[in-house]
Amino acid sequence: MSVICSYDRLFKFTRAVFTSIGCSEVDANLATKVLLAADIRGIDSHGVARLSGYVRLWEAGRINPNPQVKIVHETPSTAVVDGDAGLGLVVAPFAMQVAIEKAKIAGTGWVSVKNSNHFGIAGFHAMMALEHDMIGMAMTNASALVAPTFSIERMLGTNPIATAIPAGTQPPFVADFATTTAANGKLEILQRKNADTPLGWVQDMEGGISTDANVLKKGGALLPLGSDREHGSHKGYALGSIVDIFSAVLSGASYGPWAPPFPAYVPMPENMPGTGLGHFFGAMRIDAFRPAAEFKEHMDNWITRFRNSKPAPGHEKVLIPGDPEREMESIRVKEGIPVVASVIEELTSVGKQFGIEL
Amino acid sequence: MSVICSYDRLFKFTRAVFTSIGCSEVDANLATKVLLAADIRGIDSHGVARLSGYVRLWEAGRINPNPQVKIVHETPSTAVVDGDAGLGLVVAPFAMQVAIEKAKIAGTGWVSVKNSNHFGIAGFHAMMALEHDMIGMAMTNASALVAPTFSIERMLGTNPIATAIPAGTQPPFVADFATTTAANGKLEILQRKNADTPLGWVQDMEGGISTDANVLKKGGALLPLGSDREHGSHKGYALGSIVDIFSAVLSGASYGPWAPPFPAYVPMPENMPGTGLGHFFGAMRIDAFRPAAEFKEHMDNWITRFRNSKPAPGHEKVLIPGDPEREMESIRVKEGIPVVASVIEELTSVGKQFGIEL
Repeated sequence: MSVICSYDRLFKFTRAVFTSIGCSEVDANLATKVLLAADIRGIDSHGVARLSGYVRLWEAGRINPNPQVKIVHETPSTAVVDGDAGLGLVVAPFAMQVAIEKAKIAGTGWVSVKNSNHFGIAGFHAMMALEHDMIGMAMTNASALVAPTFSIERMLGTNPIATAIPAGTQPPFVADFATTTAANGKLEILQRKNADTPLGWVQDMEGGISTDANVLKKGGALLPLGSDREHGSHKGYALGSIVDIFSAVLSGASYGPWAPPFPAYVPMPENMPGTGLGHFFGAMRIDAFRPAAEFKEHMDNWITRFRNSKPAPGHEKVLIPGDPEREMESIRVKEGIPVVASVIEELTSVGKQFGIEL
Repeated sequence: MSVICSYDRLFKFTRAVFTSIGCSEVDANLATKVLLAADIRGIDSHGVARLSGYVRLWEAGRINPNPQVKIVHETPSTAVVDGDAGLGLVVAPFAMQVAIEKAKIAGTGWVSVKNSNHFGIAGFHAMMALEHDMIGMAMTNASALVAPTFSIERMLGTNPIATAIPAGTQPPFVADFATTTAANGKLEILQRKNADTPLGWVQDMEGGISTDANVLKKGGALLPLGSDREHGSHKGYALGSIVDIFSAVLSGASYGPWAPPFPAYVPMPENMPGTGLGHFFGAMRIDAFRPAAEFKEHMDNWITRFRNSKPAPGHEKVLIPGDPEREMESIRVKEGIPVVASVIEELTSVGKQFGIEL
């Protein structure tokens, strides 16, 4: 039940929506590019499927379409950026660019961001470093859906970490993943199919074993990467916590269970200890460590060796991080992006609101 | 089957062994302090249990007891350190100190190390940052024991990541974990008990499901954090890869399946693409982002809120990373360190070699 849309068609529509809520042309273009990077790479939960969510946040007065994004504190290799309640899709590339500029001079750049909103896929921002022969990193905190090990309370977001590492003749190494066993988008896909989750993805409101894809609506929680203590969930819990602290406690954003929820209908938490959502970005110049050409030659060797490691029976080849998204991108650029019926409906309704045809 | 040894007794013995292989007094003291940090914190696999392993590496000519550890490349926020084949226990604190000094001036410091050896527990080095009101990070690559997702070849080490974050009145946040479902030390404990592993820790040489704690001796492999694809093993695989690349490809150490094996009886891999083992360290000055007092107040709030999150039935409280090791340390400082009989035997034999009594 999905409709194939060309990238161009989705781009024009999305840009018109961002313009309609008051974004400048430059910002609307950038926000659209970042948002659609998810659809084109196959991370359907983070692309146009979220467009109506951003519009609802704007209606609720939680998104400033014309933010004065600025550096509020800095040293040679660090900065704190205030996103002025702008779209994370615009604030994040600004902050990543600051990290890159710092790295050009100091070797590395590290930027923590407060007062922002959902920034699309982390991978987009990390990959901005690649063309500068830099390693890029991006992370963000998010609405609390994840219970720490031994807890039944939702305290952390799915808090993704993205890392992009340039190679030479090989494509870059691009890892971009939620610090949970499964991201929320995977649950949404199962919900649409009326299917159960595998064991180890979620727990019910009492902390019991569950395979109910709708368990979050019933007080349940997502589980940290590792699923349970015996399989290392305390490591996933630690990773999600580090993302929360780097993104929000370092910058002055709201952290843990106080992170502002993405759905506009969810009331804001009381006594928030900071401002808005937080992100964290890093850029490391390769030649701050060794000559870039030398490094990239070794990355080619690394990638080739891992790709050619012995596959397990039933698998043709071993992948390197970024392979599945690259393959999806090459298909979708040619064949278009399948958008599920419910998202088409949402987009049509958002379009009507502003007099834009999909 | 273990003997309780006081910290002092183990310290004097270990230091005498390091002196006997030719370390200076300063280096022997430091190496002992780092090594025993594992025993005192309850990470028994990384403490005196490895002392004979270091001696065997020295006998094999793979450890230089008097290294000229030095910076071979640097920028304001980065450095590459050549460990000159020294004990990682000595090379790592040197490199972490370089990161701290860089951070004092540039806001952050990031140091990649080549030509080193096993560095003990990652947490020790990360925690060096705490007293400077800095966040510390430490990671290292290691002998290949871990199969990537979809592979049956051992390509990565257990490649740990440690992150230490200062707080105010609360104890610091200290995460230190292997990027696998279970560390090799956990397998060793089960081997001694003749017990099976839980499902999801290891696979056999054909990539099949296994619960055999001795499977590594039979061509099997440890599994990345996440255990299988459905539970996110591609994320653990990516994390282990990032540690490998930051530690070894950035510095010029040997990476992936070419990482030098810790057991001296295992032949060195052919065609090694770099020199020795690699590490990566980071230090970020808190006040390069916001005033340290303000940050630490929020960390206290973060820690208290997480500790007081609703526990699951059957659990008294929710822990924060570092709690179990701190509890163990407070017990072992008072009551001594239990050393299992087989390790006592090994230590006694090493002692005899140098005429030192345990």
